[in-house]
Amino acid sequence: MSMEKKLKRSFESLFYPGKVAVFGSVKEKKIGNQVITQMLNGNFKGEIFAVNPKGEKPEGYPSIPGMPDINEVQGGIDLAIITVPARFVAETLEKCGSGGVPIAVVLSSGFSEVGNIEGERRITEVSREFGIRVIGPNCAGIMNTKSSLFASIEVKALPGSTGFITQSGAVGGAVLAMAENRGIGFSKFVSYGNRADIGELELLEYLADDEDTDVIAMYIESIDRGFEFLRIAGSAAQKKPFILIKSGRSGSGMRAASSHTGSMAGADAVFDVAFKQLGIIRAAGIEEMLDLCDGFNHLPRLSGRDIAIITNSGGPGILTADRAEEFGLSVPEPGLKLKSRLRSFLSENCSLGNPVDLTVEGSGLNFKRAIDAMIEDKYSGVIAINVATPFLDSLELARGITGAGRGLKVKKPVAAVFMAGEIVEEAVEFLKQNNVPVFPTGERAAFVFSKLFEYYSHKHRAKETEEAGEKELPLTAPVLEPEAAAFLKEHDFPVPECIHIKSKDELEHRAGDLSFPLVMKVVSPEIIHKSDSGGVVLNIESMNRLRDVYPEIERKFSDRGFRGVLLYEQILKGVETIVGMKRDPLFGPVIIAGAGGVLAELIRDISIRIAPVDKLDAEEMISALKINKLLSGFRGGPECNRKALAELIVMLSQLSLEYPSLLEIDLNPVFVSEKDVVIADVRIIVE
Amino acid sequence: MSMEKKLKRSFESLFYPGKVAVFGSVKEKKIGNQVITQMLNGNFKGEIFAVNPKGEKPEGYPSIPGMPDINEVQGGIDLAIITVPARFVAETLEKCGSGGVPIAVVLSSGFSEVGNIEGERRITEVSREFGIRVIGPNCAGIMNTKSSLFASIEVKALPGSTGFITQSGAVGGAVLAMAENRGIGFSKFVSYGNRADIGELELLEYLADDEDTDVIAMYIESIDRGFEFLRIAGSAAQKKPFILIKSGRSGSGMRAASSHTGSMAGADAVFDVAFKQLGIIRAAGIEEMLDLCDGFNHLPRLSGRDIAIITNSGGPGILTADRAEEFGLSVPEPGLKLKSRLRSFLSENCSLGNPVDLTVEGSGLNFKRAIDAMIEDKYSGVIAINVATPFLDSLELARGITGAGRGLKVKKPVAAVFMAGEIVEEAVEFLKQNNVPVFPTGERAAFVFSKLFEYYSHKHRAKETEEAGEKELPLTAPVLEPEAAAFLKEHDFPVPECIHIKSKDELEHRAGDLSFPLVMKVVSPEIIHKSDSGGVVLNIESMNRLRDVYPEIERKFSDRGFRGVLLYEQILKGVETIVGMKRDPLFGPVIIAGAGGVLAELIRDISIRIAPVDKLDAEEMISALKINKLLSGFRGGPECNRKALAELIVMLSQLSLEYPSLLEIDLNPVFVSEKDVVIADVRIIVE
Repeated sequence: MSMEKKLKRSFESLFYPGKVAVFGSVKEKKIGNQVITQMLNGNFKGEIFAVNPKGEKPEGYPSIPGMPDINEVQGGIDLAIITVPARFVAETLEKCGSGGVPIAVVLSSGFSEVGNIEGERRITEVSREFGIRVIGPNCAGIMNTKSSLFASIEVKALPGSTGFITQSGAVGGAVLAMAENRGIGFSKFVSYGNRADIGELELLEYLADDEDTDVIAMYIESIDRGFEFLRIAGSAAQKKPFILIKSGRSGSGMRAASSHTGSMAGADAVFDVAFKQLGIIRAAGIEEMLDLCDGFNHLPRLSGRDIAIITNSGGPGILTADRAEEFGLSVPEPGLKLKSRLRSFLSENCSLGNPVDLTVEGSGLNFKRAIDAMIEDKYSGVIAINVATPFLDSLELARGITGAGRGLKVKKPVAAVFMAGEIVEEAVEFLKQNNVPVFPTGERAAFVFSKLFEYYSHKHRAKETEEAGEKELPLTAPVLEPEAAAFLKEHDFPVPECIHIKSKDELEHRAGDLSFPLVMKVVSPEIIHKSDSGGVVLNIESMNRLRDVYPEIERKFSDRGFRGVLLYEQILKGVETIVGMKRDPLFGPVIIAGAGGVLAELIRDISIRIAPVDKLDAEEMISALKINKLLSGFRGGPECNRKALAELIVMLSQLSLEYPSLLEIDLNPVFVSEKDVVIADVRIIVE
Repeated sequence: MSMEKKLKRSFESLFYPGKVAVFGSVKEKKIGNQVITQMLNGNFKGEIFAVNPKGEKPEGYPSIPGMPDINEVQGGIDLAIITVPARFVAETLEKCGSGGVPIAVVLSSGFSEVGNIEGERRITEVSREFGIRVIGPNCAGIMNTKSSLFASIEVKALPGSTGFITQSGAVGGAVLAMAENRGIGFSKFVSYGNRADIGELELLEYLADDEDTDVIAMYIESIDRGFEFLRIAGSAAQKKPFILIKSGRSGSGMRAASSHTGSMAGADAVFDVAFKQLGIIRAAGIEEMLDLCDGFNHLPRLSGRDIAIITNSGGPGILTADRAEEFGLSVPEPGLKLKSRLRSFLSENCSLGNPVDLTVEGSGLNFKRAIDAMIEDKYSGVIAINVATPFLDSLELARGITGAGRGLKVKKPVAAVFMAGEIVEEAVEFLKQNNVPVFPTGERAAFVFSKLFEYYSHKHRAKETEEAGEKELPLTAPVLEPEAAAFLKEHDFPVPECIHIKSKDELEHRAGDLSFPLVMKVVSPEIIHKSDSGGVVLNIESMNRLRDVYPEIERKFSDRGFRGVLLYEQILKGVETIVGMKRDPLFGPVIIAGAGGVLAELIRDISIRIAPVDKLDAEEMISALKINKLLSGFRGGPECNRKALAELIVMLSQLSLEYPSLLEIDLNPVFVSEKDVVIADVRIIVE
């Protein structure tokens, strides 16, 4: 049986077990006892066995059998829940593995989270050796609402269609408790803790194909297999909406940035870029995540950015419209035809702008009619707001809202905001039962609609990049500028003519090949910032000046690794840009393009993509820059060759994939002119 | 009696009435009946009278007297609540005024909000004529929890110390309902509706001095007396925290921007600047406002930006730390000494970083000890996070948290986050009763702490500006560049030498006074964008070239109002900036300084202040610019004369206050060099 098929079987065993063994003390207040309590409260349909040295039954549950080991169980155990102290976990797993248990969830803590690396390594080993798959250790358990399985001590999930995976058990617990409070349900819940064996990737793949799961939500603090994560997460996001909280400042290599390129791209910015490239919806916190889960589960594909706000009160409508526009949606006024349709049933006191204000007279029927009118017009989503008083029949308004869109075959593009608290509780309950998502404020509903639009307008297109065979790099550290320039030239990069001069003699014989004015740069493995060290001389206008400058440079750097100078023809025109690559330990080559020169130090103006970058990507990168205005012909200036710049970016991406030993490439500055693009300086760092 | 004293008396009558008359139908489901219901449910201690044509008693309340008019009431009515149809409101107010009622709250709608301007004007007139002050019309009523007065149909406010003023009755209702749900209380509530008489300014002044009000909260859509608002709101914010939601895209003059200066500063940006200058805390929506009300009521002055996070679970702590740093707070690690103090009572499994992670073992006692340890160290605020499971005794943790900081004389700088829902309800209730504010998430607590820090570190300092006497402007529209330059020169602005040439003859005789290279600019009332129209010639190096250029310009603009040319010496050095003023219809002169030239069109780099701007303000404006780096000597460049630029900004502010007829001044570009500052072009628009 293939690994994949085996894993799938283990997951079946995990989520649909017939017989579950709970290892560890089942005395009152012990975790083993609490897990059993939750399972029984959740009406688990299978059999539960308590396994502990003395074979005790769980306190308070005399009908659950207790036994010293699992051999007595006929037909074998499908799932082991392990709550024994850390030092007994490995041997418990061994016993389970020997006894044919396919999978275990280890709730016990006391492993890598407190420095017990060895103990955790042992779990991984046992898992491999005895063929038992493991979730945890140090996790909060698992749930499957479909099979009424609540093997966890957290709040029981309500049934729903969101599959939720969490690295932090506590965040898991908080999400479940907050979700219960809002009536938001889940298909499956997995807290994977320290991931000694099964981690987020296997779980993500499973949920991406899980029929009971329409939306995936995940909380993660650290990603340790970046390339794999990109592949699997990207594929999951193509199958269904994937909402992700990535917290914490990453300790990955991007933090300790050694070059300009590196310092411009913080680690978190790279995550952001990766998630956007893959169509993953990033949430900032738990409330946003829950809002998004609710919205993506109950709202349809948003076809455009025009939304309508229908309200029985001005203020909250305005707050919602303000925020919707901030999030990139439009709140356009109805056209004349729509207005006259609205006027046919709305009184003169009602404002027919957008928000449509039904005023306090707003009845359920008018909510229904107004929503229908807006949906049948150009609006792709509707936010219906009811601000109640203790004397208003909110249930009647809720009935109107659920009555709208009856003819639609798909889900209704309608979200409700019922403000607030006790006086609308019954109405909110009614809306939820009728699959209308309810948000605490209009602003939060607007946020969800903006993400719906973003997600569904994200284009999943095939990349136009060549497959990169990995080659051996003909460079060794430290790479001097002449070598770097020659290497790039060989790969057809637009590096200008330059001559490496190592003596006065060479200067006399070879400098004549170039046209003045020239630039002279010192060549030395010890000098990284050539300009700052006085190792660059600009505007050399004549042979005589050249003869003066060379010995000065030679003298200055004689005891600092002087290996001659490079002579370039000076580039005088074009927009100054920077193009660079930094290999991220997680995501591989990160490609950066941005403003160069003085601008680069005044403002942050960069675009980032993870390789491979194709032509369309590169063009998008350039268009997103502030200096795109300069490049496009600005204040009567010429239009620069943006196509050549895009090609350079693609070439850099390709080169970085071909040579895995390239760690960093800084092309800085790169001059983009009307005619072409020229690399005026290059720095390469290799492994 | 002074107006002010009279108003104060009216407010006494409004908030502490002995006898209240409710005008309008008191049949079941009518607003009059609902108001009486709320008043009775709120245990109003005074007397209520129902006044309606037939003298009917309120349905369901036989003990409340009904009467056809108020003359029968002995001792007179203190407060009239008016719910009659719009067309009867004015006459009802007349009767009340004649009968000596000092103040009325008009809930009736049907006035300016539906275009009935005349009806509303009539209310204003009656108010003046009959000496009765009016809140409303089209409002949601008033409450005073101290006097158990709930003259409104909204959810009854819980008692508290926030005074809340709202333009939108619906936002008022939503805030009250959401606040009730979270246990947040109010001192007074006023929905002022269409403000036919009393508006936000009078209410703000009252609450600023109200002893029962510690924090002021306000929701406003439009500000119509900008200068007054600045004065009163600024003074209120000095007395107590003032939290404001300003919604809606303002229709004020800044929107239809006619000049560069104008288009750079959107109307909302001006509000933002005004609020920041005055120390007003701006909230984006209702949830933020309630979080801030809770925080400012229960937390003390924050002395620094270092906060501590103490948690029993990793994930939510990390999310909180992430957000705190985004909001400008610090979450620094404990020092060695503090760490060893923490270690003395925390087990090895606990992380002593920041967040301090007490793990699931976190007991009430350890929460208490850890909070005390952090407060006694350098931390100015603590966020205590409990992520509960159904089996955790959250009440015990809550007791630990309320037990911390016992020795402190001021309020405790401790906020709690108890996650979440039903399982922590009892504990949350306990925390609130013990004055520990509880936030739904750590992120929201972090936001509140950041605003506490901002508010209390805002310096209230005396402005160093001279009183500006208002002078008559010696300019009329349209102002040509020679006149504008001369006007500025008279007022000691650094305008360079220039000569207005109106003929070839003059050119021959006068051009010699200037040093080449020169700049020639066309003078014409018809040409606003001189450069774009080809009306500016740069780099004129000789007398001969000048003789060529003049007739060209003359010919080009001969049929476009040609009035000669201006000759300037060309300024070749310095950093290009823009300094400008645009008179806002609400706030008066808005002063702007920013990057000029190409930069200005690539990036938004401007600072905005409302006049008067003193030297310190001007220096802050410059420091906040991205080009401050350029001005401060950048990449070996010289340090520019930032002091001279600051002086120019102050002069512009002063000039704008002196001449109210100046509508716009654009100094663009202004060159700032090592030595001085020079205005290279000027445009003035007058009334």
